[in-house]
Amino acid sequence: MKFVIIGGDAAGMSAASRAKRSMPDMEIIVLEKTEDVSYSACGMPYNIADASREMDDLVVRSADVFRQKQDIDLRTGHVVECVDPGSRLVSGTIQGTQASFSFSYDRLLIATGGRSIIPDLPGFDLPGVLALKSLKDGKTIKTYLNTHAVKKAVIIGMGYIGLEMAEALRARDIAVDMVKPGPDLLPWMPRDLAEVIEKELEANAVGLYPGHAIKAIEKAESQLKIVCEDKTLTADMVLVAIGIHPNSEIAKDAGLELGPGGSIAVNRRLQTSDESVYAAGDCADAIHVVTGEKTWIPLALRANRAGWAVADNVCGKTAELDGVAGTAVFRVFDLEVARSGLTEQEAKKAGFDPVVVTIKSRSRAHAHPGSQTIWVHLVGDRQTGRLLGAVMVGPEGVAHRIDAIAVALHAKMSVATFAQTDLAYAPPFSPVWDPMLTAANQLLKKL
Amino acid sequence: MKFVIIGGDAAGMSAASRAKRSMPDMEIIVLEKTEDVSYSACGMPYNIADASREMDDLVVRSADVFRQKQDIDLRTGHVVECVDPGSRLVSGTIQGTQASFSFSYDRLLIATGGRSIIPDLPGFDLPGVLALKSLKDGKTIKTYLNTHAVKKAVIIGMGYIGLEMAEALRARDIAVDMVKPGPDLLPWMPRDLAEVIEKELEANAVGLYPGHAIKAIEKAESQLKIVCEDKTLTADMVLVAIGIHPNSEIAKDAGLELGPGGSIAVNRRLQTSDESVYAAGDCADAIHVVTGEKTWIPLALRANRAGWAVADNVCGKTAELDGVAGTAVFRVFDLEVARSGLTEQEAKKAGFDPVVVTIKSRSRAHAHPGSQTIWVHLVGDRQTGRLLGAVMVGPEGVAHRIDAIAVALHAKMSVATFAQTDLAYAPPFSPVWDPMLTAANQLLKKL
Repeated sequence: MKFVIIGGDAAGMSAASRAKRSMPDMEIIVLEKTEDVSYSACGMPYNIADASREMDDLVVRSADVFRQKQDIDLRTGHVVECVDPGSRLVSGTIQGTQASFSFSYDRLLIATGGRSIIPDLPGFDLPGVLALKSLKDGKTIKTYLNTHAVKKAVIIGMGYIGLEMAEALRARDIAVDMVKPGPDLLPWMPRDLAEVIEKELEANAVGLYPGHAIKAIEKAESQLKIVCEDKTLTADMVLVAIGIHPNSEIAKDAGLELGPGGSIAVNRRLQTSDESVYAAGDCADAIHVVTGEKTWIPLALRANRAGWAVADNVCGKTAELDGVAGTAVFRVFDLEVARSGLTEQEAKKAGFDPVVVTIKSRSRAHAHPGSQTIWVHLVGDRQTGRLLGAVMVGPEGVAHRIDAIAVALHAKMSVATFAQTDLAYAPPFSPVWDPMLTAANQLLKKL
Repeated sequence: MKFVIIGGDAAGMSAASRAKRSMPDMEIIVLEKTEDVSYSACGMPYNIADASREMDDLVVRSADVFRQKQDIDLRTGHVVECVDPGSRLVSGTIQGTQASFSFSYDRLLIATGGRSIIPDLPGFDLPGVLALKSLKDGKTIKTYLNTHAVKKAVIIGMGYIGLEMAEALRARDIAVDMVKPGPDLLPWMPRDLAEVIEKELEANAVGLYPGHAIKAIEKAESQLKIVCEDKTLTADMVLVAIGIHPNSEIAKDAGLELGPGGSIAVNRRLQTSDESVYAAGDCADAIHVVTGEKTWIPLALRANRAGWAVADNVCGKTAELDGVAGTAVFRVFDLEVARSGLTEQEAKKAGFDPVVVTIKSRSRAHAHPGSQTIWVHLVGDRQTGRLLGAVMVGPEGVAHRIDAIAVALHAKMSVATFAQTDLAYAPPFSPVWDPMLTAANQLLKKL
């Protein structure tokens, strides 16, 4: 059995390692276009925040470890350009050379990840206009910060990568403005909770400029000018963080079916429309456990889990994945922000009849020192009484609470049943009625 | 409709307030033997830790607020001695007087709570030998500490109240020894996790003396001697924290059925064996959601929730409670300790075929600053693959993670399904594979 993997990041290397452990004699070839494999991509903003740390701290396992200790044929600098499912061949060229390569496979995994969306506008290719997706991107940003007198940065986009980078840059005492064409910070977020985050950003001197369509970036002496329709911002560095695209072109060219957002469509076993070809990670779609429909939510846990499941299936141990709940958590300065499941808008779009509630509660018990405000927003379905989703914001106790919601969504639990759950209470950690229970009790009244 | 409630703490006052909100014209009489109602009992150790705080900070609502703003006929100092279900009468005497009282009822709630177990041994009635259950107890301890030169305390018992009080006393720079007859700190806890807590206690200079049967407490000049079979400890104050008894005597005398541990047996609507008489709070039993059997786990959330459910049922809105998962969390100095569901021993006793795993993981992502070790112990059932319980210990990220386990237990989720849940990940809060998922994956291999 010859197992070829395109892409050596989370999904690809998880699959390679697990398949090798399972079947040590299997021939496994990993083709990675960069020189970097197996690193903590999500850790990059926190590493960039600290000038004293090396970016290579984020490397979990080096290419040599995979090659020597795990006996995986890992080939970096290998850019796959073509997959031919008919003849079961992958081919491409070696980075920086004229040399081409071609490999046959019995099973193929496409784990090509995603890439930052860069608008097709003038000036987005200027030096100092950067994006953050790969480790190489991270190193470029860090080197830029370490070698240029960056006193002011502009972040285009207001998603979680942009917010994490705003925190990282402020930690380096760099002034930060954030700008985007759309009207809202985190558009999926209920407005009452988004306001809490806006206040936190303002308290940390981050300038917010939503609703400004960007026309171009221009070079102006030693600075960059971000020219919007009705406003111009200046910066020493620009970070483009408006989202990612799945790297699905080779799959599309190979005639494989695509899913939401142009991702590669896979079944529960991670097989594409060609059963010998798997896809996993940021390039592949998933089933949403709340809607039962296909979705594309590129996140790290799913990539690792899908990599494992591919390995199991390739090794003959059937593995089917339930799907994703869209659980995500991130930090914005001193706030924890978390979500799982559907927002009100997403619920409507999926055909539910959503009812929502937002409550303010406390992070610790009555009269316990250090207690702070936490916000819980819940979405339920009027027709069935089902819990559909949650968003939470607060300075503590949010990041792990969301896991309870995620489990409830996997269990397709009703709001009424969730409201009866025996959640933990002790004064340093919660009021007697956990904020999630208070929210569920309030939502029940509206359902 | 005349609704009489015996006991004005969590369950009793929750029931009274909710019934009054629901049916403002209902006649509600609350008979409370002490002068204190509606206070945060669980907050007492943290209040005692801080000499500068008033114990009354813990009072959530005063008796006068209930009387004046909520129009509840709240009678403190009323000690109920007899319930007569046949004639629907409660009677007793008023504290510190010869006066007796008697009230008829249409519906009765017994919410008499529990009391500290005090061994029937010589010297347990000496001044300076104290226990912590009621607000009055808390005030007595605090006054004792504020008015005596307490340099050394001995805590008899090693449960969570004892551990919380050890932390509180150490915060006041009081030397602490803990002693108990049984061999183990937290006997329900897996030994590998209990050792982590033992080390934390040792690091905080708490002396641990398990396996010492106590014979007596003796007065020795200005100190107290705790005389064990093979050892004598000295102290300026002794805290007896070996557990609580349900206050179920009046229910027993009234011929009502009792449940586990001598608690009052109730159905899902909180009715006792007499359908006009309800019981709720620390004096009443509950159904365990994992075993489906009766259990007695006196905790605050259940008391509040049961109080509400009684009010709803009394007001004609049928409320049935699913039951408890035995979720509990407490802090031991810098450690968070949490559990939900069954331990291996409890699972065996309940007729399951338990398989367990303990894993060590990290509280934050690879290379994220401040990451610490956290321990997860999971219990699964070999026959059905069901998740049965969890215990977790760690310096951060434990207290709220346990809620995910609690929800999974309510959903009767299998370990395999739990292992597929989409839990939150971001570098400041978790590794990519949440420690609970790592534990579930390991447990799956053994099932």
